Amino acid sequence: MSAQPPVPPRRAGGEFALIDWIRRRVGSHPRLEVGIGDDAAVLSWPEPDSALVAVDMLVEGVHFDFQHATPEQVGRKALAVNLSDIAAMAGRPVAAVVALALPRGRDEELGQRLHEGLVGLAEATEVVLAGGDTTSTDGPLVLSVTVIGTPLPGGPVLRSGARPGDRLLLTGCLGQSRHRHHLEFTPRLDEARALCDSGGLHALIDISDGLAADLYHVLTESRVGARLRARDIPLREPRSATEYAPDGRTALAHAISDGEDFELLAAVEPETAAQLIAAPPFETPLADIGEIVAGNSAELLMPDGRSVPLPPLGYEHQLD
Amino acid sequence: MSAQPPVPPRRAGGEFALIDWIRRRVGSHPRLEVGIGDDAAVLSWPEPDSALVAVDMLVEGVHFDFQHATPEQVGRKALAVNLSDIAAMAGRPVAAVVALALPRGRDEELGQRLHEGLVGLAEATEVVLAGGDTTSTDGPLVLSVTVIGTPLPGGPVLRSGARPGDRLLLTGCLGQSRHRHHLEFTPRLDEARALCDSGGLHALIDISDGLAADLYHVLTESRVGARLRARDIPLREPRSATEYAPDGRTALAHAISDGEDFELLAAVEPETAAQLIAAPPFETPLADIGEIVAGNSAELLMPDGRSVPLPPLGYEHQLD
Repeated sequence: MSAQPPVPPRRAGGEFALIDWIRRRVGSHPRLEVGIGDDAAVLSWPEPDSALVAVDMLVEGVHFDFQHATPEQVGRKALAVNLSDIAAMAGRPVAAVVALALPRGRDEELGQRLHEGLVGLAEATEVVLAGGDTTSTDGPLVLSVTVIGTPLPGGPVLRSGARPGDRLLLTGCLGQSRHRHHLEFTPRLDEARALCDSGGLHALIDISDGLAADLYHVLTESRVGARLRARDIPLREPRSATEYAPDGRTALAHAISDGEDFELLAAVEPETAAQLIAAPPFETPLADIGEIVAGNSAELLMPDGRSVPLPPLGYEHQLD
Repeated sequence: MSAQPPVPPRRAGGEFALIDWIRRRVGSHPRLEVGIGDDAAVLSWPEPDSALVAVDMLVEGVHFDFQHATPEQVGRKALAVNLSDIAAMAGRPVAAVVALALPRGRDEELGQRLHEGLVGLAEATEVVLAGGDTTSTDGPLVLSVTVIGTPLPGGPVLRSGARPGDRLLLTGCLGQSRHRHHLEFTPRLDEARALCDSGGLHALIDISDGLAADLYHVLTESRVGARLRARDIPLREPRSATEYAPDGRTALAHAISDGEDFELLAAVEPETAAQLIAAPPFETPLADIGEIVAGNSAELLMPDGRSVPLPPLGYEHQLD
């Protein structure tokens, strides 16, 4: 009898073809001692004695649909949101594993295209796709990505380290998620590294739930309050902060309440913050949008001089 | 304004209640420097400079249904299959992260019960539940677990190290998956450690796809063949190997073809193997079921003295 390729009974042939494709697509990587094809992946691990782990699951019909996003964009995003989380810890991503539930009867190419987008970003960020699990489902497509990494020197930087007097610095601009930004954003890994290298970084978070909500994560964990200046919050919209967008809400309201901007919000010691603003260590815009104060709540100084309370969700009516 | 708890707009209240419950349920752990509640988990990492990563996704209606399994069993199994993979690398699991897509309208308690089963096994195996992502879905429940770990001293042990002359040792017995074993099995972590400590362990795999299929994984990766003795394959059924089960297949056919036994199959240097069989270092039964030979295929010595080729799936007709 000649040897036959192993064909485990639990899996469909299409899934094995996909796994083979992924294995070839990923290729070799200096950190990947054993990749796809054994019981688990083996990674050579960098020196730090801590590991970072982040996981995110995207569900078709809940987080995306293929009318508004290509499979490549969905695959890329599933990795990018995790890289944003690792950046927000002042970390360096090392490896990712992917679990995919592919709807029965859907084109097998769909799995390849999802991975194509994911692997493209992995290569660009020097992350190794170390393994995965592919299965079928009678429901919508589900893609779950786990990323492990290590803290940068000076990291990890948590949400809990903000102190009164710290400046609040924001990378990039807000209110972008309506502009497909959430499908195309670049995780702020380099910016996180530069902020961490500054030596004055006290707290860090990525804006995934919206500026107001994510600011409150920092305030709650650090037991502090904050004062933001609306005038200094960088908006994607070229129009003024208080002008109404087509949906009847102001650009400022969108900037504060919309999620998925995936910019970094940093609490930085004031002198370091001034240096960073004067000579930003990266090309991405960096803005000083306010300060950490004593207390446990946030207020927003409006362009017209009013000061309004800023609750976790952003008071849309007050802002509009 | 008094501080309000952060309520990110992207998530439903029920999901936050579940996350809070999980956070309390998991509690503290010596390895968990930062757990649920920041952008990523921070783990203190043991000394080895390699990391192991395994991932497995369970889909309702494909891998389980709640008519035949309790939520606790499903949650436990989602972790257990990964621990079995880590064991099969001669590894020690350190941490797990969980991604859960919970069908809209399903009882919130379901998420808790899944995690209860999972955390129970995590505690029993000293694995820390480091984080997760909980979301909703319009489809079936999907549970994806990623486990990271470290190789044991002497590990990792791959599928590719088997050599002609090695004995094939099997923990426990086979043909169990029809007996709810797949919902209740204990991952063979201790057994893997003892096999690795023996110093003669050349290759290791867990029986998830079935003995024949998983044996072929070892044969293919190691570029060797194998000879198994049917008489020595331990069966869950008390009846003889060639007696027919109620479904018309022999107990031996079930043992060789059925997946989800989650026992370990080890290729061990002959002298060490003899010592292990003479004085097993653990209470779990350990059987010598055959040997690695040159070539690239497997044959099975039947109880009646016939020698039959054993293809990856097991030739059910020949065996029956």
